[in-house]
Amino acid sequence: MAGGTRVLNWKHHYRRLAADCALLGLALPEEKLLLDEIARVAPETGATVKVIVTRGAAGRGYAPTAGGATRVVAAFPLPPYPPGLAIEGVRIRRCALILSQQPRLAGAKTLNRLENVLARGEWDDPAIHEGMLCDGARRLIEGTMSNVFLVRGGRVATPDLARCGVIGAQRERVRELLAAEKRVCDVRDIEWRELEEAEEVFLTNSLIGIWPVTQFEHRRWRVGPITRALQERLANDDEAH
Amino acid sequence: MAGGTRVLNWKHHYRRLAADCALLGLALPEEKLLLDEIARVAPETGATVKVIVTRGAAGRGYAPTAGGATRVVAAFPLPPYPPGLAIEGVRIRRCALILSQQPRLAGAKTLNRLENVLARGEWDDPAIHEGMLCDGARRLIEGTMSNVFLVRGGRVATPDLARCGVIGAQRERVRELLAAEKRVCDVRDIEWRELEEAEEVFLTNSLIGIWPVTQFEHRRWRVGPITRALQERLANDDEAH
Repeated sequence: MAGGTRVLNWKHHYRRLAADCALLGLALPEEKLLLDEIARVAPETGATVKVIVTRGAAGRGYAPTAGGATRVVAAFPLPPYPPGLAIEGVRIRRCALILSQQPRLAGAKTLNRLENVLARGEWDDPAIHEGMLCDGARRLIEGTMSNVFLVRGGRVATPDLARCGVIGAQRERVRELLAAEKRVCDVRDIEWRELEEAEEVFLTNSLIGIWPVTQFEHRRWRVGPITRALQERLANDDEAH
Repeated sequence: MAGGTRVLNWKHHYRRLAADCALLGLALPEEKLLLDEIARVAPETGATVKVIVTRGAAGRGYAPTAGGATRVVAAFPLPPYPPGLAIEGVRIRRCALILSQQPRLAGAKTLNRLENVLARGEWDDPAIHEGMLCDGARRLIEGTMSNVFLVRGGRVATPDLARCGVIGAQRERVRELLAAEKRVCDVRDIEWRELEEAEEVFLTNSLIGIWPVTQFEHRRWRVGPITRALQERLANDDEAH
């Protein structure tokens, strides 16, 4: 998200928030209210905005209370990712941490992110830009902070996130862009080995945009044509937004 | 925990905190410092104290930072559980939510408790005092806020919490009391049906002490001799503390 009252990909961000509030039984803040508050905290172009909704003040214990939700709308500078990463591509690793499966929370972007924190703590080599996560059946799920797409034979695929993982707003936007171009994007279970066999691999999140993956251990990739076309499509979409 | 500088079961509480800080890479606050702070927030007898350690202030992103931990030591009134529950026993239900399995975090008392919140949200009948949770293999794991013990043929058992669940300080204390009486307490996988077949069932946590279970659906139990003996042993231990 960036730019005064021009909030990039707002539709999918708000949709994610609405789905997660419904899941957790939290009151969904009105769209107009949030947009007003975002404009207030980020009046200048080029900010990252974070919106958090919590159950609000309550006593101890796990029983959900009926009281009003707390809303946090905060602005940050844009993250310090070198723009070269989107052009030249990134190097990934495979994390040892295995994601647990909880269909009741799968897809949601909650604040319970200890698995991501443990996974991100597995490496500190700045040459490695993202760590990939699998479930207990060696299925590829996501990166610690991103969603992942594979291309093979002109067909795009991204992991089904019905058991674990976060359905990022940027993943949904990329799926929408692919659909608009009548390009097939399968949402399905993906074995880890399919990543190594893919012709193109790319990562998405709202702050990185699209990062082509160009290295995993000894496997190298060139940045492929579908990844490049999507990056352009995304940039045009941002401009037109 | 209760009572001026007399902190009940402190040894197991501090052990839990130490194990969880090590797991998450957080600096463990010194024992003396915490005891001093607890005495300061709870100078009177009969308080509940909550100690939280977090990674402290940091920027965005999942990468763990090296900065100092934040320590929260807060006192609350004793919870409003009717004392009759420990005497007459409680009624339980079985929750629909299935606990996910994450061996890396199993046993730890972290702040990622959305599963407990969802499970506790499944009922609001005040006649039901606790909801029991199973894993995907129908193994009994714990209550939403308590650990569980079963007795059959004079032998006590409590679920192995190597894949999910919280190893409560009171569970560890009860295991220690049982060991001191040379009574066997198996820590093992327990099928759900074993709960219904048990001769005695009881729940533990630091605030409830020991609650005998006397009803699950149509199954009724009398409060059994081992449960009663343990309650007395615990009360004496609190006095002598």
